[in-house]
Amino acid sequence: MDDSLRSSIPNCGDNVYKLLEYAMGWIDEDGSPLSGRKGKALRPTLCLLSSVASGGALQSALPAAVALELIHNFSLIHDDIQDKDEIRHHRRTVWAVWGNPKALVAGDVLKVIADRSLIDLADRGFNSILSNRIIGLLTEAYLEMIEGQYLDLYYERRTDVGISNYLEMVSKKTGALIRSSMNIGALLGSEDDSVADIFRRCGRSVGYLFQVRDDILGIWGQEASTGKPVGSDIRRRKSTFPVVYTISKASGSDKRDLLHIYQKDGIDDNDVQHVLEIMDKMDAQSYAQDLAQSYRDDAVKLLSSVDLVTKSHKDLVDIFNFLLVRES
Amino acid sequence: MDDSLRSSIPNCGDNVYKLLEYAMGWIDEDGSPLSGRKGKALRPTLCLLSSVASGGALQSALPAAVALELIHNFSLIHDDIQDKDEIRHHRRTVWAVWGNPKALVAGDVLKVIADRSLIDLADRGFNSILSNRIIGLLTEAYLEMIEGQYLDLYYERRTDVGISNYLEMVSKKTGALIRSSMNIGALLGSEDDSVADIFRRCGRSVGYLFQVRDDILGIWGQEASTGKPVGSDIRRRKSTFPVVYTISKASGSDKRDLLHIYQKDGIDDNDVQHVLEIMDKMDAQSYAQDLAQSYRDDAVKLLSSVDLVTKSHKDLVDIFNFLLVRES
Repeated sequence: MDDSLRSSIPNCGDNVYKLLEYAMGWIDEDGSPLSGRKGKALRPTLCLLSSVASGGALQSALPAAVALELIHNFSLIHDDIQDKDEIRHHRRTVWAVWGNPKALVAGDVLKVIADRSLIDLADRGFNSILSNRIIGLLTEAYLEMIEGQYLDLYYERRTDVGISNYLEMVSKKTGALIRSSMNIGALLGSEDDSVADIFRRCGRSVGYLFQVRDDILGIWGQEASTGKPVGSDIRRRKSTFPVVYTISKASGSDKRDLLHIYQKDGIDDNDVQHVLEIMDKMDAQSYAQDLAQSYRDDAVKLLSSVDLVTKSHKDLVDIFNFLLVRES
Repeated sequence: MDDSLRSSIPNCGDNVYKLLEYAMGWIDEDGSPLSGRKGKALRPTLCLLSSVASGGALQSALPAAVALELIHNFSLIHDDIQDKDEIRHHRRTVWAVWGNPKALVAGDVLKVIADRSLIDLADRGFNSILSNRIIGLLTEAYLEMIEGQYLDLYYERRTDVGISNYLEMVSKKTGALIRSSMNIGALLGSEDDSVADIFRRCGRSVGYLFQVRDDILGIWGQEASTGKPVGSDIRRRKSTFPVVYTISKASGSDKRDLLHIYQKDGIDDNDVQHVLEIMDKMDAQSYAQDLAQSYRDDAVKLLSSVDLVTKSHKDLVDIFNFLLVRES
């Protein structure tokens, strides 16, 4: 997987590809190689395991897995520009090092390299009808993802975002790519629409599981693991699950205080502390964790309804369990 | 063509698609419909005419033509963010109205809508091998285009950009999409690689013709037609042809003055005036116009070597002639 990823990005000196190698975690700002890979490579792993679990060869799903990881990294480059985030995974973000204009182009280039990886599918023994279907599925997933990013921006200054709005936004922004990772993997592995559909529904639950845990870490995660101070998503007015839940369920003076804080021009440390207190009072963290647990259970149950290759079935369940308790 | 373009963008209220309708020139900032379409629609027109000239039906090249126009408009949205341009075609740019983050996402969405239009090719009676080839060609062209945008940014603060660097940058940034418009059109129209190759080479000349004339207008164009003040590309330090030519050919005190001005932190009105005087002395404008003329002649000559449908052959030559003298 790592080799396929690396060979997808040309290595040719001081140009836009240097920014991409940096974004992928392969080199530092000076161009010196870094060992190890950043990130969890969640989406390609889900794709490859779904393919193998449903009867396919690992190799055959590689181009799609590479495309998924590249699209995900592309979305991070543009996301960081949008959110003005200067640090990700304890490293400076691409725009923070090279400025907005070059980071913007670098993201665009990464997206097209992802497309090119998909075009390779046709050379891997898949008939072109199946390849075209995969390209179509990933295009739709990608469109949903950026529609979700737009919703995320659109909700930032609003306090009337309900749980259903939140779920719709997450289903697009995070869910679409995770869902299609499993759907596409199973489609390539089984070439059977009913199996692929179960993986798609499973991926839907995994998307929510991933995001709700991510939201918990965005508020209560420790800086040493997440690289972000406690409460950072409160300061950034992100419509994450604990916030949406607390604002929609609070009443009386708590509700009044929350609306006041979220409509202020700047949210300071005292405000963050006060929001955290109200969240504690309402048990927002354990409510969110219970919700993540229920999505994990749904995902496990859906997979148990299909006849799968035991080893990779178990690997998938291990990932779901990990997503429920991860600290970074 | 206009109907196909409009139907490619969903019309569903106050979301990212509103920004796209604005970018395409269909609505104003308040969402009220605008009559007429902005822009020249050069790329889809070249694609459709190349298809018809080489024996195809107009309808069959429509999805590719739509994709080309959408990709071009996508590139303008991201370009304007990169260049901090607040006005294009006498209207505020997308980022100037809605801010950088939303404009960035809007561009991303437009690109994926373009991809979706291409996927439609397969439903238009083309075998999936030809559709996949077109998708591959456009992906490569798009990648070249954004590599060229990166080069353009990279060259902005440099004074050692020679004419060959300039031509390489233009061949990518502007040339790739124009070249592939004609190449793809002819491939769809003739299904004959040797015909498509002649159109590709013709498109190469048309790309240079377009850009060199554009560069002339960026310096000597009248504000009433271009919407930009005389000398605006000098102030923006753009490595356009007249600038690259003048810097590389100047000597003595002219050369010294040019290098000094182009390395200053801010270029003021006096500097612009002085650069314009040196350019006049070196006949940069007529040298550039002669170069544009020679590319126009190459393009005409290449087409005359193929047996084409007379009417659309003539329409293509009319476009080349127009590109040589256009004022906006």
